Amino acid sequence: MKIVTAVAPVNIAVIKYWGKRDETLILPINDSISATLSLEHMCAKTSIVCSPDLTETKFWLNGELQPTDSKRFQNCLREIKKLVNPNLEYLSWNLSICSENNFPTAAGLASSAAGYACLVYALAKIYEINGNISSIARMGSGSACRSIFGGWVRWQMGNTTDGSDSLAVQIAPETHWPEMRVLVLVVNDKTKTYSSTSGMKTSVETSTLLKHRAANIVPQRTKEMITAIKNKDYKTFAKLTMQDSNQFHAVCLDTYPPCFYLNDTSRAIIELIHFYNQNKGETKVAYTFDAGPNACLYLLEKDVAEVIAMINYVFPPTSLKSDYFKGDTVPSKKLDEEFTEVLSKHCQPEGKLKYVIYTRVGRGPKILLDSQDHLLTESGIPKFL
Amino acid sequence: MKIVTAVAPVNIAVIKYWGKRDETLILPINDSISATLSLEHMCAKTSIVCSPDLTETKFWLNGELQPTDSKRFQNCLREIKKLVNPNLEYLSWNLSICSENNFPTAAGLASSAAGYACLVYALAKIYEINGNISSIARMGSGSACRSIFGGWVRWQMGNTTDGSDSLAVQIAPETHWPEMRVLVLVVNDKTKTYSSTSGMKTSVETSTLLKHRAANIVPQRTKEMITAIKNKDYKTFAKLTMQDSNQFHAVCLDTYPPCFYLNDTSRAIIELIHFYNQNKGETKVAYTFDAGPNACLYLLEKDVAEVIAMINYVFPPTSLKSDYFKGDTVPSKKLDEEFTEVLSKHCQPEGKLKYVIYTRVGRGPKILLDSQDHLLTESGIPKFL
Repeated sequence: MKIVTAVAPVNIAVIKYWGKRDETLILPINDSISATLSLEHMCAKTSIVCSPDLTETKFWLNGELQPTDSKRFQNCLREIKKLVNPNLEYLSWNLSICSENNFPTAAGLASSAAGYACLVYALAKIYEINGNISSIARMGSGSACRSIFGGWVRWQMGNTTDGSDSLAVQIAPETHWPEMRVLVLVVNDKTKTYSSTSGMKTSVETSTLLKHRAANIVPQRTKEMITAIKNKDYKTFAKLTMQDSNQFHAVCLDTYPPCFYLNDTSRAIIELIHFYNQNKGETKVAYTFDAGPNACLYLLEKDVAEVIAMINYVFPPTSLKSDYFKGDTVPSKKLDEEFTEVLSKHCQPEGKLKYVIYTRVGRGPKILLDSQDHLLTESGIPKFL
Repeated sequence: MKIVTAVAPVNIAVIKYWGKRDETLILPINDSISATLSLEHMCAKTSIVCSPDLTETKFWLNGELQPTDSKRFQNCLREIKKLVNPNLEYLSWNLSICSENNFPTAAGLASSAAGYACLVYALAKIYEINGNISSIARMGSGSACRSIFGGWVRWQMGNTTDGSDSLAVQIAPETHWPEMRVLVLVVNDKTKTYSSTSGMKTSVETSTLLKHRAANIVPQRTKEMITAIKNKDYKTFAKLTMQDSNQFHAVCLDTYPPCFYLNDTSRAIIELIHFYNQNKGETKVAYTFDAGPNACLYLLEKDVAEVIAMINYVFPPTSLKSDYFKGDTVPSKKLDEEFTEVLSKHCQPEGKLKYVIYTRVGRGPKILLDSQDHLLTESGIPKFL
């Protein structure tokens, strides 16, 4: 019997992945770049038991038993097993897999990326595989490949038809830019969003702007972003991040029928950030939005206190909210009166944001050795049962 | 003393104008196509008195005296005067000009297009000028050139640097497609929108997607749209109209900082139209949005009653609204129960729309001969004073 428990981080792209050239292998039409967020506040956790006593392979996700015949799950398992020594005794044993996120999936925060990275990372440990497993995580969920590494990560689109060169590489470790901070603004929204899988498929089929973006804009932008990250050039990093988020949503709108992920609150956040940067005379905050209305702000530690104060002022929590700010302890600052005066015209009704997570760039997946951390008993039964 | 009163229509583009290659002459970076709407419900009206007794040229717009040294006003006046016989006695006389819109300017409904078309049309009558004056109206407000003609109109971008070939031509008269109807959905919105003048300037400067659109997408789309209009091919017309509206707003989002013109209500309208077309198994309604949240729906007469009933159901007026539907008399129909059932999940809170204008494609500007229609007395004093 073998048991492994791993945790894997969320990542937030600053150059966006949108569009596949191969739906089965999950090969993208352009490179993308992301930062991996700290495991502390947002992560997926997966325990795997591999045992000759298990009569079948089972998979629980967030407390619910999942079908194990899903294409994505099977692809990951098959590709991992290809790398295993075929004589390994326990290769034929069944698996019990239990996975959960420590943040609300309702928040729509890249949970599948963390989830598949965690699954593949844990499987690799079970079967004692080394090497770059990011291309296997990619087959579960494209952006999962980037969660295999900490710090700043590039997903190289690759060129081969078998996808062997479509994998993630680390641009810089999490220690490279220690001042970088992240605020995740979770927007209150009841609108059902389009799945990103079907949205990007429709974009590839119908958006003429997407073809142009992938072929002619992203390659240059990727180079510029890597240079900005390596040089810790915040101003360039921030502008490219905002431009690429906007262009990704532009492509969604150019899709037919269009996909909308930004709502009026997202728009208010974007306008607030531009207003703030302009008012301060320099770029201090950058926003980026994935396939949903939630904002992710990249900013430097020195500016966090004021930005937190501004968010609290412009987007007041409902009177019932006690834990509006989650994650790291938020620094406190009073907005100066003159700035509050001009800010007052940007104020939103309370309750537009659900909550805010304050976090930072962090490391890649890791193994938890304490038996208390396992989600499964040694006989492969989820502890929650 | 000479007095002339003219009315000129609004036009709504189906291939959008966005971006100038010359800011002064107002020369666009791509062709655009529009339908001219009936004068009956939405028009600008301008009276001009030309008299040796006037000590200065004055211009009232919607009841307020305007500066006459604005570049756009002066450009129109100068270009018109270039075409006048220089020996004409009254060329040196001053003008009294009074202009107003018969629809709320707050609605953000292309009022400057109708206004400048009306001004230039009335000036041309005063000075007895014939020929295509659309290139002069263009110098007041780009899209005004299309309001010089009725029916279906193309604004040819032209190629010369002096702009002499950047003018409007009629594709088909207003009688060509008699079944075509228009519903203008005026959205309740308090957000201040970016002016289209500065928005398109920023787009030209910052959006890489706009360059691609203008150079590589619009030329082909323009040809297809002209063919669809000439053939009264509603299905193709509708798809191109929606795609081009979406692409225009995509480009606005790709602008840095981004310009947002669609809000959550606009989004709900777009989703409703796609839902309706899909539910009916054919394209029955097309939306288009200019630089604001209001929708303009193009549809055929046979489908108006059901679409009106749907709008009334999904976007109920506030309980206080008595004149929710303006314009032509709206046909009445009861939605069938099965459709109402599926529609119920699209319902919006009341008050999301201010009102709806039901209108049709109409003729170009015309002169009003009845002295009661003049906005000015014969001595050039606005009657409202």
